[in-house]
Amino acid sequence: MLKGIHEECGVFGIYSSGETDVAMQTYVGLYALQHRGQESCGIVVNDSGVFSYYKDLGLVHEVFNKDRLHQLGEGNIAIGHVRYSTTGNSNRSNAQPLVVRHVKGPMAIAHNGNLTNAYELRTEFELKGAIFHSTNDTEVISYAITEQRLVCSSIEEAVANTMKKIKGAYSLVVMSPQKLIAARDPVGFRPLSVGRLGDSYVVASETCAFDSIGAEFIRDVRPGEIIVIDENGMRSIETNLGDKPHLCVFEYVYFARPDSVIEGSSVHHARLKAGEYLWKEHPVEADVVIGVPDSGLDAALGFANASGIPYGVGFIKNRYVGRTFIQPNQTERTNSVKIKLNVIKETVKDKRVVLIDDSIVRGTTSQRIVNLIREAGAKEIHVRISCPPFINPCYFGTDIDSKENLIACRMTIPEICREIGADTLGYLSVESVNKLAENSDCYFCNGCFTGEYPAPVPKEIPKDKFEFKIKKTDR
Amino acid sequence: MLKGIHEECGVFGIYSSGETDVAMQTYVGLYALQHRGQESCGIVVNDSGVFSYYKDLGLVHEVFNKDRLHQLGEGNIAIGHVRYSTTGNSNRSNAQPLVVRHVKGPMAIAHNGNLTNAYELRTEFELKGAIFHSTNDTEVISYAITEQRLVCSSIEEAVANTMKKIKGAYSLVVMSPQKLIAARDPVGFRPLSVGRLGDSYVVASETCAFDSIGAEFIRDVRPGEIIVIDENGMRSIETNLGDKPHLCVFEYVYFARPDSVIEGSSVHHARLKAGEYLWKEHPVEADVVIGVPDSGLDAALGFANASGIPYGVGFIKNRYVGRTFIQPNQTERTNSVKIKLNVIKETVKDKRVVLIDDSIVRGTTSQRIVNLIREAGAKEIHVRISCPPFINPCYFGTDIDSKENLIACRMTIPEICREIGADTLGYLSVESVNKLAENSDCYFCNGCFTGEYPAPVPKEIPKDKFEFKIKKTDR
Amino acid sequence: MLKGIHEECGVFGIYSSGETDVAMQTYVGLYALQHRGQESCGIVVNDSGVFSYYKDLGLVHEVFNKDRLHQLGEGNIAIGHVRYSTTGNSNRSNAQPLVVRHVKGPMAIAHNGNLTNAYELRTEFELKGAIFHSTNDTEVISYAITEQRLVCSSIEEAVANTMKKIKGAYSLVVMSPQKLIAARDPVGFRPLSVGRLGDSYVVASETCAFDSIGAEFIRDVRPGEIIVIDENGMRSIETNLGDKPHLCVFEYVYFARPDSVIEGSSVHHARLKAGEYLWKEHPVEADVVIGVPDSGLDAALGFANASGIPYGVGFIKNRYVGRTFIQPNQTERTNSVKIKLNVIKETVKDKRVVLIDDSIVRGTTSQRIVNLIREAGAKEIHVRISCPPFINPCYFGTDIDSKENLIACRMTIPEICREIGADTLGYLSVESVNKLAENSDCYFCNGCFTGEYPAPVPKEIPKDKFEFKIKKTDR
Amino acid sequence: MLKGIHEECGVFGIYSSGETDVAMQTYVGLYALQHRGQESCGIVVNDSGVFSYYKDLGLVHEVFNKDRLHQLGEGNIAIGHVRYSTTGNSNRSNAQPLVVRHVKGPMAIAHNGNLTNAYELRTEFELKGAIFHSTNDTEVISYAITEQRLVCSSIEEAVANTMKKIKGAYSLVVMSPQKLIAARDPVGFRPLSVGRLGDSYVVASETCAFDSIGAEFIRDVRPGEIIVIDENGMRSIETNLGDKPHLCVFEYVYFARPDSVIEGSSVHHARLKAGEYLWKEHPVEADVVIGVPDSGLDAALGFANASGIPYGVGFIKNRYVGRTFIQPNQTERTNSVKIKLNVIKETVKDKRVVLIDDSIVRGTTSQRIVNLIREAGAKEIHVRISCPPFINPCYFGTDIDSKENLIACRMTIPEICREIGADTLGYLSVESVNKLAENSDCYFCNGCFTGEYPAPVPKEIPKDKFEFKIKKTDR
Repeated sequence: MLKGIHEECGVFGIYSSGETDVAMQTYVGLYALQHRGQESCGIVVNDSGVFSYYKDLGLVHEVFNKDRLHQLGEGNIAIGHVRYSTTGNSNRSNAQPLVVRHVKGPMAIAHNGNLTNAYELRTEFELKGAIFHSTNDTEVISYAITEQRLVCSSIEEAVANTMKKIKGAYSLVVMSPQKLIAARDPVGFRPLSVGRLGDSYVVASETCAFDSIGAEFIRDVRPGEIIVIDENGMRSIETNLGDKPHLCVFEYVYFARPDSVIEGSSVHHARLKAGEYLWKEHPVEADVVIGVPDSGLDAALGFANASGIPYGVGFIKNRYVGRTFIQPNQTERTNSVKIKLNVIKETVKDKRVVLIDDSIVRGTTSQRIVNLIREAGAKEIHVRISCPPFINPCYFGTDIDSKENLIACRMTIPEICREIGADTLGYLSVESVNKLAENSDCYFCNGCFTGEYPAPVPKEIPKDKFEFKIKKTDR
Repeated sequence: MLKGIHEECGVFGIYSSGETDVAMQTYVGLYALQHRGQESCGIVVNDSGVFSYYKDLGLVHEVFNKDRLHQLGEGNIAIGHVRYSTTGNSNRSNAQPLVVRHVKGPMAIAHNGNLTNAYELRTEFELKGAIFHSTNDTEVISYAITEQRLVCSSIEEAVANTMKKIKGAYSLVVMSPQKLIAARDPVGFRPLSVGRLGDSYVVASETCAFDSIGAEFIRDVRPGEIIVIDENGMRSIETNLGDKPHLCVFEYVYFARPDSVIEGSSVHHARLKAGEYLWKEHPVEADVVIGVPDSGLDAALGFANASGIPYGVGFIKNRYVGRTFIQPNQTERTNSVKIKLNVIKETVKDKRVVLIDDSIVRGTTSQRIVNLIREAGAKEIHVRISCPPFINPCYFGTDIDSKENLIACRMTIPEICREIGADTLGYLSVESVNKLAENSDCYFCNGCFTGEYPAPVPKEIPKDKFEFKIKKTDR
Repeated sequence: MLKGIHEECGVFGIYSSGETDVAMQTYVGLYALQHRGQESCGIVVNDSGVFSYYKDLGLVHEVFNKDRLHQLGEGNIAIGHVRYSTTGNSNRSNAQPLVVRHVKGPMAIAHNGNLTNAYELRTEFELKGAIFHSTNDTEVISYAITEQRLVCSSIEEAVANTMKKIKGAYSLVVMSPQKLIAARDPVGFRPLSVGRLGDSYVVASETCAFDSIGAEFIRDVRPGEIIVIDENGMRSIETNLGDKPHLCVFEYVYFARPDSVIEGSSVHHARLKAGEYLWKEHPVEADVVIGVPDSGLDAALGFANASGIPYGVGFIKNRYVGRTFIQPNQTERTNSVKIKLNVIKETVKDKRVVLIDDSIVRGTTSQRIVNLIREAGAKEIHVRISCPPFINPCYFGTDIDSKENLIACRMTIPEICREIGADTLGYLSVESVNKLAENSDCYFCNGCFTGEYPAPVPKEIPKDKFEFKIKKTDR
Repeated sequence: MLKGIHEECGVFGIYSSGETDVAMQTYVGLYALQHRGQESCGIVVNDSGVFSYYKDLGLVHEVFNKDRLHQLGEGNIAIGHVRYSTTGNSNRSNAQPLVVRHVKGPMAIAHNGNLTNAYELRTEFELKGAIFHSTNDTEVISYAITEQRLVCSSIEEAVANTMKKIKGAYSLVVMSPQKLIAARDPVGFRPLSVGRLGDSYVVASETCAFDSIGAEFIRDVRPGEIIVIDENGMRSIETNLGDKPHLCVFEYVYFARPDSVIEGSSVHHARLKAGEYLWKEHPVEADVVIGVPDSGLDAALGFANASGIPYGVGFIKNRYVGRTFIQPNQTERTNSVKIKLNVIKETVKDKRVVLIDDSIVRGTTSQRIVNLIREAGAKEIHVRISCPPFINPCYFGTDIDSKENLIACRMTIPEICREIGADTLGYLSVESVNKLAENSDCYFCNGCFTGEYPAPVPKEIPKDKFEFKIKKTDR
């Protein structure tokens, strides 16, 4: 709501040894992953090869009611997806999982990430007679797997061959009549973990989904690895395409839930560390440290702990947010941020305030927030941002505002400081960012800060090539 | 509601010389075709190659509200579809028109009919790597056109080549970025007509759609003919596959609206003739002739006119029918037919009644209706049916109940008469049916009566091959 | 849709000797009465003095789904209502039945009609401290009954005393914890009948509701009569206020369903008679007689039978009408009537046509219909209207357009004939109208034609006095 | 969701000097008060004496969309309400504001609180002929004001007289054609404040509503005070019924938003103090202090600050809560609390944890939460509750679980400690609670802890007397 950066998606899958209510478990799992995508969601249940699905625009609790869950029936495998759109317009036909039938039977796919050669692959398939119903990368992946499936003896072999062909970021969950398959791209841009719930196996974008259904974390899927779960249990296929993970740094800074653990490191802990490093890099004398809810709060606590400056609660965020909230027109008197975020004056009045946020995108929201604190009587406002300025596009599944809109592309840090009305402004350095995942063998994709990406980036894509305009529904 | 036979679909298309509200015209046209399919509907608008669409389960006035029509925007071409399902489950993903993108750009297809070689074609395409999102024939047709489009210089050539490949019944409307194309199968099983509205051209399953938007009928599309409408106006491509039309006789007897004209013959007139022939074949002494609403009314009037027996209004049908009406459980006292259909006792009390209906499927509804009239005091009840008994399956787009359920497969006419409680029972002969389209060069497909079809019928199809169970929404 | 006159409401009540699904029976009964009001509806179920209810804007099958009916639970008494608004705005708070609690317990009331002294009574009660939630007459009646209930030993006595106080038209159904009460105003403006279903008693505005649930008609409630149904069965209380019924003539001509029987006379038969009298009063040489659906059809058949001119089907009405249908903007080419009503050209082409309708309100619809037939090739068009011109307001529950809009207030009959484009025009005379209910002891309120009413009419009412504007919901 | 205690309502009113979008301002204000009631809401707009309203079950952003706000139109006065039900069932007819018409014109009322003599008053009015549509206290208040209005020269005088008659807790907003009136009961159980926005005056249950629309806080309405706002501005009427405020202590502890200021004291500050006092009363040696979101967080920070034990983030609460979320059935493995609340293991593993919550109702939720932390590896768990045990009913608008369910009525503190699985358990003392509103002249109603109430409490009320069962809608 308040940000200009967005995650693409969350994926979930479950394989149960018997017929159970896998639809309900997927529902609960998707609910825990809701923060990764609020635009649409879907669940596919596999009952001995018969696939039942439902997907639509809306939050998990809006799209699924008791009747709809019930209609999905029982089964022993299910996959689910929550989506925020990057490639492909926001409409019902882009909702995932994608359910298709090829010559070997039905297949369902849920995908988090962004392919960098989707355009080339799409054209290649079209020249062989393919037709596309959506503008999703997922449909491209479906064709790639299908093509391989015709010449491979198993779905997992088809997925393995497909991974040689598709480039970019992907954390995939694929369901065939007999198997649940999870695959992560060779760079490991997006998280993907495996867990266990009794005799069942579970895969999910984040470990918080395991906690919600009472499952136990086993391990992360490795970059370039394929996990196959079937009646013989779980086994791993190494494509040898992968290397050390280079996770999108925003997963730690912004996207993931603090209670998730990625590549062995707690997201909450990483954010505490971000606050600690911010203090080391940009110390300041102050009376209170406050964070912008929700993702700035942990770093604020880390900053407070490291600095000895008291931690305070500076804002209350209105929790009754709904997609249907009507924004009043702006007038000189109103500040739309106030509707979502109110200052606790008590905390900041007559104080020197350190204000921690996770990013500055266009600058307008930061300006409004600084202004709110100023109006509430703060004497000084020292803004600290728990990541470096981002100045480059992301090709791997994060939807950052266009370059013209990024304030850091247009201004120096002192200029930004002036623009947003702060007394001082400090960004976390790239060096510190690289140390966030403590005690982990995890590297980061820092491309949006540095322009250096851990995988080839595409030449300019004729974006409109993909589009056939599809209207949003008004639901 | 009261019948066990159903039409598959209705199609509509409009090509305007300028940007106009083609969405609204399609909306009104589909509303006029609503009787051909009440399960789902959709509209696609083409604005200089940008396709906007919306489709969902529901009646035309339920699916489209002002916002949704508005969101479709203006354009110069549009196509629409209303659907009742035969092949393919009842769900949103089977709603038409189908909108896809192939290598030459977007394409939208609306289809009325049933292919007899869909299974073979589907397998053929799957073996080349095709994936299917639905269980529609329309998706098979899309692949066929796309395959041809790769080697043909125009969409119309691709459609022409596709017509050599697909078998069975089809009245198609295809939209490319520049063109509106209408095509009818070589046998002409389903109706398809062309009209004009000022500078615009219109195609529709029935002429009543032209009347509703104020368009003028030009002519029927001929069996095997392709009509192409683009900036150069309208032209015809003859595939030379076609012959004299062999229209599904149920179009006259039951499906089409009486105000439509098909192959030069008024549907209302054909039904009057059916009544007239019924009288000639099965005369009876009686006091009043009544019809079962709505499709039996015209034949009843024809019977009355021919016989001199007074025409009467025997039933009132409750018009506030909705898909969401809750059927009460049957008890010995209730008769579910009563909720929809009430007898006007005045008309039948102490009378010898001739009761005209268009068909007897399972016999249970006929039995209930006869019973209603008997309870209302009729002295004699002489049932006359305006078509022959049907005892064979339809492969060309009519959804008739399965053979086990067809009363005429299990009983002789005297047995049926006894079963439904009538005093006498007479069916129209095949000979008379063949004369219904007076002054027209139209022949009929009488396969459901005679077992002789005007085109090859498929061997037994493994129906479940196509299915991946998809749940109905509860809307 | 096509008319400017509307009925106010329909009422239904059932008393069962045991706990049964009275909600479902009321649902089916209201569905049969839906033609009397399509704006809102409601059902109240009485389970041993606990009243459960649900009401909302919409048709019966829209407002009630399985869950809602189920939530109403079982009971032994229920009442229901369908409403079109006359007094009181169109909104949810005016939906009936009204459910209130007074000092003796809960009470529910459903009302069809219009009080002529509502304003005076309202003011009288307000001066005693009453507050009003709605602009319904029904709320006024509730106060009147409640006031009496404080001094009477029974609810029926309170209703009897109330009937001395309230003036105008009312057919009431009242439910107390123990009793179902039906009451009809002393003039009998609106119909109200009693029936039996096994051990249960049923009351309804029209007998077609009895047929729909399999109940048997007993008799009409007499003007000024109160029917009480409780554990001792059914009994009658005569207030001695009533006389011979003076039914609103529009009940026969337009509102009631043809399959209903009112005051011993079939509605269908009355309409056939109207056609017969029309022929006698305004004979004409012609080739075919057609009626405007639905209410003109019976009179057309009566005209045809009497005259010997063949009866024809001139129009097809689109049955998929929904409140949500979007009217396209009028252009010179379009004729909005065409969307709902299409001519069967075959029937009228080159013919001299007698066109029967039940009324002419503003004249615009008649003009369009005549024009449709003219365009379809009719040689002559002779319009016959099955009631006299109406030129006076109705104070008793029929919503006629305002006087300025009534064409008969502005023009002579020859002028109207010219205006609507007919060759000749004939209205039924008041004398003939008075003979419509053959073999019945029923008189008519003809006030809208003659200005002579069977009960005092109010002085001008300051209409806005009642209003507090309440917005329509957009459902 | 996780608690068994509920606030009743929130009220809002605005008086503008000119015609403005008072509907939108009320919408934003109610959105800020949403935490006070999530069951239903409503807005009434006054345009020169014409009242337009809409209300329904649902959250503010669910009930009001753009169309509905637009339909309310412009006006110069508006009031609004959010509701959680205590007296009166959960249904649409109990939604507020109540809009009625009495002899002097329309009146709208929004009410927060609970009358203790509602039953007597209701009976008194019923004996004078009153009818009730709902089971709301608000309807009783309407009758009381109306009765006075008949003999008083102004609405404010009528309200003043009414305040002598009604007993219990109430913060009222009343709108007449010309005036906006706010009134608070003589004890001041519930908060009510006045603010200013340019030339407009605003009243609201909490000051956070002022912040959301950019209004400025003026002062609290005093106990027993009436505020009248009309074209002459704002003036105060002192009924002399009131005394020092005795605010419901739960407003500080649980209900109110931390960013609100009540009786001069910041809610956030009061909660920090609660934590501080908890430390003083129940010190413990520990490694981390965590709070249960959301209302335990502030007290946890206060405890941490006072004790020097580090503050930690122990839980993540899933924010995508919706009324429609489907609870899975409990199994031995699942813990429904996990779906809403997940532990950050990092924070508690191998630590001695102080866990702060605001209350223990039944004990089951506390037990589950303690268990979650134990499973996450906490060595010791010391539960501290920021209010005393409650063991008495509330008669003034807080909906506490029934006495049988209150764990503190059944067990001693050591027993509760054992039951919930904590190592130690400490409740805040009543003495400390009384000091929460620092520097304020505010006293508290502590009846639920002490059994001593600042106003008379009613004898046992025959609860069912009021009820006529009204079914919930399934929306």
